[in-house]
Amino acid sequence: MNNIDYHINKIDDVILTHLEENHVSETIMEASKYSIKAGGKRFRPYLLFAVLDAFGVPLDSGLKTAGAIEMIHTYSLIHDDLPAMDDDDLRRGNPTNHKIFGEAAAILAGDNLLTESFSLIANDKKLSAGDKLELIQMISKSAGQNGMIGGQMLDIEAENKESSFEDLEQIHNYKTGKLISAPVNAAAIIADADEKTTFHLLKFADYLGIIFQIRDDILDVTGDVEITGKNTGSDARKDKVTYVSAFGLEGAMDQMDRRVALARAELEAVSDMINTDELKNVLDKFAVRDN
Amino acid sequence: MNNIDYHINKIDDVILTHLEENHVSETIMEASKYSIKAGGKRFRPYLLFAVLDAFGVPLDSGLKTAGAIEMIHTYSLIHDDLPAMDDDDLRRGNPTNHKIFGEAAAILAGDNLLTESFSLIANDKKLSAGDKLELIQMISKSAGQNGMIGGQMLDIEAENKESSFEDLEQIHNYKTGKLISAPVNAAAIIADADEKTTFHLLKFADYLGIIFQIRDDILDVTGDVEITGKNTGSDARKDKVTYVSAFGLEGAMDQMDRRVALARAELEAVSDMINTDELKNVLDKFAVRDN
Repeated sequence: MNNIDYHINKIDDVILTHLEENHVSETIMEASKYSIKAGGKRFRPYLLFAVLDAFGVPLDSGLKTAGAIEMIHTYSLIHDDLPAMDDDDLRRGNPTNHKIFGEAAAILAGDNLLTESFSLIANDKKLSAGDKLELIQMISKSAGQNGMIGGQMLDIEAENKESSFEDLEQIHNYKTGKLISAPVNAAAIIADADEKTTFHLLKFADYLGIIFQIRDDILDVTGDVEITGKNTGSDARKDKVTYVSAFGLEGAMDQMDRRVALARAELEAVSDMINTDELKNVLDKFAVRDN
Repeated sequence: MNNIDYHINKIDDVILTHLEENHVSETIMEASKYSIKAGGKRFRPYLLFAVLDAFGVPLDSGLKTAGAIEMIHTYSLIHDDLPAMDDDDLRRGNPTNHKIFGEAAAILAGDNLLTESFSLIANDKKLSAGDKLELIQMISKSAGQNGMIGGQMLDIEAENKESSFEDLEQIHNYKTGKLISAPVNAAAIIADADEKTTFHLLKFADYLGIIFQIRDDILDVTGDVEITGKNTGSDARKDKVTYVSAFGLEGAMDQMDRRVALARAELEAVSDMINTDELKNVLDKFAVRDN
């Protein structure tokens, strides 16, 4: 196991230990743990560690921040799946949180993971007070009304009206993009990166966010429920504007390839400052179309 | 207008300015503002300023922290009112958030106020990095699974089983008590209070939390919808264990008076260190039974 995988494997422990430390309600702890243990790709922690690694910074300095971002990602999925939102019964091949614990507990478990994510960062003993505050500023902005939550609302509203391609890009930029930039930005903060390197890494992350969304849209059409953990064709059934509905399957793949090339160029721009090999691997994985 | 009232009146501005600064979704901003503007007693900001005042610390040093705690209180009310939770149509005399904006927007507006509350503190320019981190640690703990959220879940679960008086006290301690201690604790952090003074202030706050809950339970029976802004008798209709259902109306009033006396004794214990006049006024207000 390489160093990055080793630290990704520690993320669950970091989160579960925090959730188990003190708890007033067994139900809230179990509901919170359920969605964390349901797994997922841990793509955001992976990105954070890959960027730290590129700087040669010890990866354990990013463990709690990576855990906090994954907690925020997980809370957003729990709330997204609620009957009043996407009304999904299945997530990563498992029943969604509210299907197991009921709606009230699922709402509160989401609230809990969000609240405790800031607690996890604030109590991190490996980082300076200055770094922790900068991380909380950046992550709360990425997750709040100028980021993920703003994008989620735009996405809901887009279901009831004609959306242009520009609308679609803006929705993805906020709904999923900001929380994919966040771990890259977090690693840059922890590594004390210079302005130019941070600039190019954030551009790389922006492209990656779009790539990630295009891939999701493609998998919703082509993916096997066994692989994606959710039912295919759900976007089309909901009349959602996606990259596939806007450009067709081939067109969406072209859109993805173009973003992969642009992202690669951003890495080239900083390859004299940091070791970008692992980050280039990320892009290679996405370029493989039969993922 | 006295100095405390002057600063309480600034709380809305502090929160609304933060919410208006940058926003991706008009709906989320409006839904978040709606519940902030719906008002409320601003009891938590009042407490924070009253304790700062007792230390002789300039009140504007607590403005953003008080705003953040009020945002957390407001988010908890939005989520509490949801159909999957208490299913309330009326809050402070106005339609609840989901009645105006729909359930999805109400869930997201709650998430937003919680997320942005940490942003507000992290970006406060009047406090040191050390104070801000200590505040985020304390507030996230008070609001999370070891505080308010844990208590909310216990409260929901208590509806479906026989609850003892001890259960009832524990529920209130977490569900409402922790976010009433939080502004007192926050002021002690900002004022750099010594250990002994903080200890007694937190004991005072614990009693105050119970007093506050007993008063709510009493008002649910005796209160006018015009004053309380919610329908009376809703606890009894839901078969909720309350101080009134456990002790009767007179018994609940006795319970309140006993706590007022205990809280007053805690203030006496620190009256040589700080000016406790305003905090004693708080207690006097509660002691008036026809409130």
